[in-house]
Amino acid sequence: MAFKEGERLLLIDEKGKKFMITLGERSQLHTHGGVIELADIVGKEPGYKAITHKGLEFVVIYPNLMDYIEKMRKLPQTIQAKDSSQIIANTGLCHGMNVVEAGVGSGALTLLLCSIVEPGTVTSYEIREDFANLARKNIREYGCTNSVIKLQDIYEGIDEKDVDLVALDLPEPEKVTEHALGALRPGGHLFSFSPTIEQVIRLHDSLRYSDWMEVKTIECIVREYEKKRMGTRPKTLMVGHTGYMTFARKR
Amino acid sequence: MAFKEGERLLLIDEKGKKFMITLGERSQLHTHGGVIELADIVGKEPGYKAITHKGLEFVVIYPNLMDYIEKMRKLPQTIQAKDSSQIIANTGLCHGMNVVEAGVGSGALTLLLCSIVEPGTVTSYEIREDFANLARKNIREYGCTNSVIKLQDIYEGIDEKDVDLVALDLPEPEKVTEHALGALRPGGHLFSFSPTIEQVIRLHDSLRYSDWMEVKTIECIVREYEKKRMGTRPKTLMVGHTGYMTFARKR
Amino acid sequence: MAFKEGERLLLIDEKGKKFMITLGERSQLHTHGGVIELADIVGKEPGYKAITHKGLEFVVIYPNLMDYIEKMRKLPQTIQAKDSSQIIANTGLCHGMNVVEAGVGSGALTLLLCSIVEPGTVTSYEIREDFANLARKNIREYGCTNSVIKLQDIYEGIDEKDVDLVALDLPEPEKVTEHALGALRPGGHLFSFSPTIEQVIRLHDSLRYSDWMEVKTIECIVREYEKKRMGTRPKTLMVGHTGYMTFARKR
Amino acid sequence: MAFKEGERLLLIDEKGKKFMITLGERSQLHTHGGVIELADIVGKEPGYKAITHKGLEFVVIYPNLMDYIEKMRKLPQTIQAKDSSQIIANTGLCHGMNVVEAGVGSGALTLLLCSIVEPGTVTSYEIREDFANLARKNIREYGCTNSVIKLQDIYEGIDEKDVDLVALDLPEPEKVTEHALGALRPGGHLFSFSPTIEQVIRLHDSLRYSDWMEVKTIECIVREYEKKRMGTRPKTLMVGHTGYMTFARKR
Repeated sequence: MAFKEGERLLLIDEKGKKFMITLGERSQLHTHGGVIELADIVGKEPGYKAITHKGLEFVVIYPNLMDYIEKMRKLPQTIQAKDSSQIIANTGLCHGMNVVEAGVGSGALTLLLCSIVEPGTVTSYEIREDFANLARKNIREYGCTNSVIKLQDIYEGIDEKDVDLVALDLPEPEKVTEHALGALRPGGHLFSFSPTIEQVIRLHDSLRYSDWMEVKTIECIVREYEKKRMGTRPKTLMVGHTGYMTFARKR
Repeated sequence: MAFKEGERLLLIDEKGKKFMITLGERSQLHTHGGVIELADIVGKEPGYKAITHKGLEFVVIYPNLMDYIEKMRKLPQTIQAKDSSQIIANTGLCHGMNVVEAGVGSGALTLLLCSIVEPGTVTSYEIREDFANLARKNIREYGCTNSVIKLQDIYEGIDEKDVDLVALDLPEPEKVTEHALGALRPGGHLFSFSPTIEQVIRLHDSLRYSDWMEVKTIECIVREYEKKRMGTRPKTLMVGHTGYMTFARKR
Repeated sequence: MAFKEGERLLLIDEKGKKFMITLGERSQLHTHGGVIELADIVGKEPGYKAITHKGLEFVVIYPNLMDYIEKMRKLPQTIQAKDSSQIIANTGLCHGMNVVEAGVGSGALTLLLCSIVEPGTVTSYEIREDFANLARKNIREYGCTNSVIKLQDIYEGIDEKDVDLVALDLPEPEKVTEHALGALRPGGHLFSFSPTIEQVIRLHDSLRYSDWMEVKTIECIVREYEKKRMGTRPKTLMVGHTGYMTFARKR
Repeated sequence: MAFKEGERLLLIDEKGKKFMITLGERSQLHTHGGVIELADIVGKEPGYKAITHKGLEFVVIYPNLMDYIEKMRKLPQTIQAKDSSQIIANTGLCHGMNVVEAGVGSGALTLLLCSIVEPGTVTSYEIREDFANLARKNIREYGCTNSVIKLQDIYEGIDEKDVDLVALDLPEPEKVTEHALGALRPGGHLFSFSPTIEQVIRLHDSLRYSDWMEVKTIECIVREYEKKRMGTRPKTLMVGHTGYMTFARKR
């Protein structure tokens, strides 16, 4: 498992600050704590401690999916992993399933979905070419091969049939309800992420109870704790809200 | 995709009540709303509406992983999917990775981990033979083949090396810290689920900062909403606490 | 401070179960743990331990306002003290102020408001005579003399002028916005409690920014902890939602 | 009710920014939005709109208790009103009661307690002379006359007897448990605010169940909502934790 040129690596300092690099692209990494000669890393193994010229230590490892998503170029409104992982808990999404997604944004949700369903496929609808290109770049660089991104408006319709999940991050998810019904297999799930409650209300209003079951809206609130010398307590400041997540299952 | 004898199916009534059956094992399903003749289901397709002799309608579909976990025989303290899915968000766990887990309980977490890492392997340590047998039965019946359950005490040590995740649901996780350090690859994660804060404090005290990074304790609180004729609001009663989840990453 | 006939007393057993009695009204109290002879309590002092004929011990004290509200006859939707006490935190309500309230319900909020503003007055609007009568009985029995309850519809108008607080627990608070503006002194507050978010949205839509300032909607979530032999943790089940509280201040 | 020299006034701009002044102390108020001639305010009534020389409008009103606490000089760790108002909800504190408090800090909790119990008395123990002086100044300037601050260590004992509430904001509340028992009347309450859970655990360990009842630890989490053009949602960032509040009642 020695590090080779062309591999993507993660360097983490003692306070948790991370740098993601590709070996061979540059000769040096300039950090807040000094310079690292990257050539020294070739041939070393995960866990190797690289030292800057000022003596700061960085652990070198292979990044995982979440490291990659953390460090890739993202749009401001990206769905967080705490939320997107609730898709698995609420739909049983797993390997071999097929997903339709819209809009793709920077591809963070796409990458997680691709990783879960592989060798299944994730087909993403996106109307903004700049977002589609950013997502394609992020996904290709990660090495993911089961993603298809279409420059197409999902409000106009869904081409795919018999899919296991339709995952939406759109301002008007209620416009996709009927299309999702046509695209999903019986027992398949609709997922929609919305920042505001008005969007949730409109989505619910569009879900006929003859067509859908297990309709459910949740919020996932993650509370982080800190243990300091003084004692243990939840962090003073927290993310109070990211969005509402609505699930529905085709009858 | 017509239903065949020997297949496991899910029947869901109009209020969401679920029954899980295996076609061919019994001829009738007796429900709160009357009897269903199961032979009628053979040859039908997912989405078929089975009707009881009293006229209640059930949709018939294949169960997914979460349906299966919901309906299988479980121990009272089983980690919920809202929590276990946070492992993915915090460790980047994905296909091909290898996991060590203890204790296995009824196998609910094992099943989720197996589903995510396939074709990687999940090795579970459990000291109670009755729990190990229940978990093996649940996992085998689901059709999962990448699980190994050992009747062995993880407090005594971990045999595996270079694993990506050590996942603990134990009263004294602090006894496994050193073993986990030996078992994990650099950059691999320790996960521990604990109902009480005293367990979290002891676990933190056992994690030397020279060996571990990204040490983090979270709670995942899921708040469910209901939209009724009167209006939309969070449910009056909610699950206030399941457990604390601690993550640490081998330096 | 010896207990006298006619006084209202609280008896609390070892598990926290409470009985509220008036000395002299009955000769015996029949509890789940046996009978207490109430005549024995006369002349005793707060902290006295009354023993049932089966040996169960009850502490005898004078009830405070919250004990009284807990034991008085209430309607199901009564605003909880965790919520109503936020009025003080957000409006600075204190002794000498004057309040208009609607609807009165069973008088729980009225009693708290009366207790805070005394010698100020709380004027309550209520359209249901049965509620008004129940509230009057509860308030009179507590011994509160600064409450006036009117059988009048606040949607039609508010007679009072220059009040410090208008407190609403009504299905359509947006119908009172204009009346409240006329009744409040500059710097006085509007408070509205609503179970659903649609009510909050309608109320906000009715508040012109030229007339109101410090418009704010909050939820107050109280999380209770338990320390058992196993350790310390939040209670498993909790009240997830009671209502939204909106505050606005007359410009 | 015309404004007179010597009165404390609050000026609030269109965005909610507040200034607290005493009429007659200065001739001008310099704000971010220009200068206000304060002499113009004399003789005006609450609700008067003062205009800066640049045209920014400020409403002029009398400050209430919470305005005063917001603007007075405070220490960083001051208990927030959302928390201190829970004392009322959990102890039934009201006018005429007597309270012992420690430590006094900047006097914010003292002011709230004084306001509630008046004409009862709040006796505060504080060992730091600078804090005691700051609190005395804040309390005197507000015009509160039922506060007594002692330069005395409450860990050494409590002089008062038969009090209704002992309210603690101290690093080691467990050192006051026995003293509180001696000071409280039967049915009186102990309240303790602690930022960390270890303090809560030690306090619980010091409370004998033969002496105390209704032992309870809570957190009060206030979630604020915002209604913007896009829609309604909880604020993105929130205060995740201030402290744990423990209540116990003398048996």
